[in-house]
Amino acid sequence: MKLFAVFACLLVGCLAGKPHPCSSPPLMSGALTVSSQNEKVWAYAQYLYDALGQRLRLKEIGTYENKTFTYDVLLLYREATMYEIVKHNRTCKKKPLKGDFYPLGIPKTASLLGQAVVGSSSGPGEGLLVNTWTGDQPDKGGKFMITYTEFGCIPVSAAFHTEQFGWMVLSYFNNVVGISDPGELNPPDFCPDTEMENSKEEPADFLSLFFKKH
Amino acid sequence: MKLFAVFACLLVGCLAGKPHPCSSPPLMSGALTVSSQNEKVWAYAQYLYDALGQRLRLKEIGTYENKTFTYDVLLLYREATMYEIVKHNRTCKKKPLKGDFYPLGIPKTASLLGQAVVGSSSGPGEGLLVNTWTGDQPDKGGKFMITYTEFGCIPVSAAFHTEQFGWMVLSYFNNVVGISDPGELNPPDFCPDTEMENSKEEPADFLSLFFKKH
Repeated sequence: MKLFAVFACLLVGCLAGKPHPCSSPPLMSGALTVSSQNEKVWAYAQYLYDALGQRLRLKEIGTYENKTFTYDVLLLYREATMYEIVKHNRTCKKKPLKGDFYPLGIPKTASLLGQAVVGSSSGPGEGLLVNTWTGDQPDKGGKFMITYTEFGCIPVSAAFHTEQFGWMVLSYFNNVVGISDPGELNPPDFCPDTEMENSKEEPADFLSLFFKKH
Repeated sequence: MKLFAVFACLLVGCLAGKPHPCSSPPLMSGALTVSSQNEKVWAYAQYLYDALGQRLRLKEIGTYENKTFTYDVLLLYREATMYEIVKHNRTCKKKPLKGDFYPLGIPKTASLLGQAVVGSSSGPGEGLLVNTWTGDQPDKGGKFMITYTEFGCIPVSAAFHTEQFGWMVLSYFNNVVGISDPGELNPPDFCPDTEMENSKEEPADFLSLFFKKH
């Protein structure tokens, strides 16, 4: 019974107080889906995230304009470099990477929309306390709405408004704090040391990795 | 530490096994948002749900085709009756109700898409184990995708495809097992005992309550 009280207390946020913008753990891995309101884009991705080293690995499978694609990319923001990796035939392209590294978490300029329990606070393991925030990204031309867990500052979902696709919704799941294979955040040995030439189009931000033509 | 082990165990589903279709608790209350892909409909509703008595109370506020509305309705499926209630000026319309009562839960014909942790399984209170199911509703002309908690069979989200609106997404939150004020599931004393005449359009199902012109 005492255990249940602790559960229930955690669920309803007895330790929580007023939500504040938070930073996610610096090392995380998990999965996410991306979908767009106009149904042009749908993707499932496994991600590895290293905010300390400003590194991101995404292994995607999805559809863009009704064509399926797979895409395996390593983004090294500190070195302004990205690697497009095709593991099964050991090919790799090194390309310049533009754009800043945005750490997971709530920007200080975001406004709290509200706190809610996903599921139920009536029993242990039945609910999750989350906070939803909104804000503007003037540089990216749109509004956003993001939901993170109260405990742990783990991303749950994010929605961004874009001109090209309408709302784009990211849903995170199976997140784990830490990275089980740190080697995945280094370029494989078959990747070139020097950049390939033919890179007219460059990823401007995280989202564009899901709808560039591959 | 022992407590943590129990938490983590619950989170990652040590007691779970293969997910099976489930029935939600017969008495529930909570809130939900409804939004449509074409942005015609957006609504927030508080709900009271009684599967034993086949009764449902919805207090909505939302927009339909850019016009805001409020709507307070009590649905008594056993009596095939609905009441449209305006509390502040004590008016009430009694109308016939068509359609079956669909209890919350997973239909036996649904297919499991997968199990996932929303948030993280790395710490107590940071994650929620959910199951996602898909299926067809031939009588309603569309596919659906529903997500429920593994523990408690609490609704998390539901998406239905409709011809009129594209995908309609329901997100449930702040669910509580039980009903704090059962009186809210009875018609108020200012409701008429006999039906009003002018009811050409009748709600065919639950979803239509969110996009009828009020």
